[in-house]
Amino acid sequence: MEFKDIVTRRYATKQFQPRTIPEETIKELLELVRWAPSGLNLQPWRIKVVADAETKALLEPATPDEPQIKSCSHLLVFCVDTDFGAQCERLSRAMKEHGVPERVHDIVMGIATEMSHLPPSEMQAWLQSQVYIAATHALLGATALGLDSCPMTHFLPDKYSRILGLPSHLRAVLLVALGYGADEPHPKWRYPLEEILL
Amino acid sequence: MEFKDIVTRRYATKQFQPRTIPEETIKELLELVRWAPSGLNLQPWRIKVVADAETKALLEPATPDEPQIKSCSHLLVFCVDTDFGAQCERLSRAMKEHGVPERVHDIVMGIATEMSHLPPSEMQAWLQSQVYIAATHALLGATALGLDSCPMTHFLPDKYSRILGLPSHLRAVLLVALGYGADEPHPKWRYPLEEILL
Repeated sequence: MEFKDIVTRRYATKQFQPRTIPEETIKELLELVRWAPSGLNLQPWRIKVVADAETKALLEPATPDEPQIKSCSHLLVFCVDTDFGAQCERLSRAMKEHGVPERVHDIVMGIATEMSHLPPSEMQAWLQSQVYIAATHALLGATALGLDSCPMTHFLPDKYSRILGLPSHLRAVLLVALGYGADEPHPKWRYPLEEILL
Repeated sequence: MEFKDIVTRRYATKQFQPRTIPEETIKELLELVRWAPSGLNLQPWRIKVVADAETKALLEPATPDEPQIKSCSHLLVFCVDTDFGAQCERLSRAMKEHGVPERVHDIVMGIATEMSHLPPSEMQAWLQSQVYIAATHALLGATALGLDSCPMTHFLPDKYSRILGLPSHLRAVLLVALGYGADEPHPKWRYPLEEILL
């Protein structure tokens, strides 16, 4: 499928068919997500894949106005890792293991040190934003693999933490419901280019 | 090009050929960006397309360690619109103009009202994150159109505001340099799936 068709076909699916996505398709999709870029190549994301009806039922009241939580085949819960320091240490080790040239390693770690002085709210916004890159790979990748999807940011992250037993340095920031659409997409609209460009 | 190949081929290009992207290709790319999804369909992004050498030279000192600013053909400066209230009013008008069913309009605006009570730092993080969806469309779309690109978050937004004359409610959050790569990509590495999944 051409990228243009992927972008055009994708829509926020509100109702899914009672049909389960094969595990190998989910794996293929996660592989597309895994290769997403991120600032410093930090990859500050963790993903919980929810496929069982019981957990979905628990999450439903923590996701108001989003009934697709229940009808979807799989729900990807995208979490941000909020511990920048620990991730930078891990990044430094991983770059060395992967044979990244020392010069590149040192530039990246220099920027990381500079960034560690960002105000906490800016740092958290930066980390969270990187997770959206991975989630966008999931949305577009799903269409490319013949799946439908729905992104959601309207949910109760504290309840998600409790229900999924997330460690304190992780926080759910975006959900992607996956499956096979059972609804008709609303006609799409966007602002015209002249209202977007400066 | 298959989506998998797009994801695999894209790399952070550090040096571009001295070759200008045709304007119709830039337009095609911006069209792919324009259709990006966002929470509430708010589309809280504005984009400054920088193609002239003079502005690029002015931006270079505000973008340390990123020489690709100078060699790229076009630089997309992705800005977030930080004024949630004004954008919600515009969204309500636009939904009515586009014939969005009243029931859907009211659900969206209800969520918007709820969100308007978010702590300001959370609201700004949410708005900024949406812009990353559009920027990811730009990165993947560029590869699909035979272009190379480099995303950058390491720059001085206040200086960008001054140089580009941005109004106070807009703030540059991410840059995408575009052109035809003149460098060899470093081998890519990412954490294995078992370290990403919860």
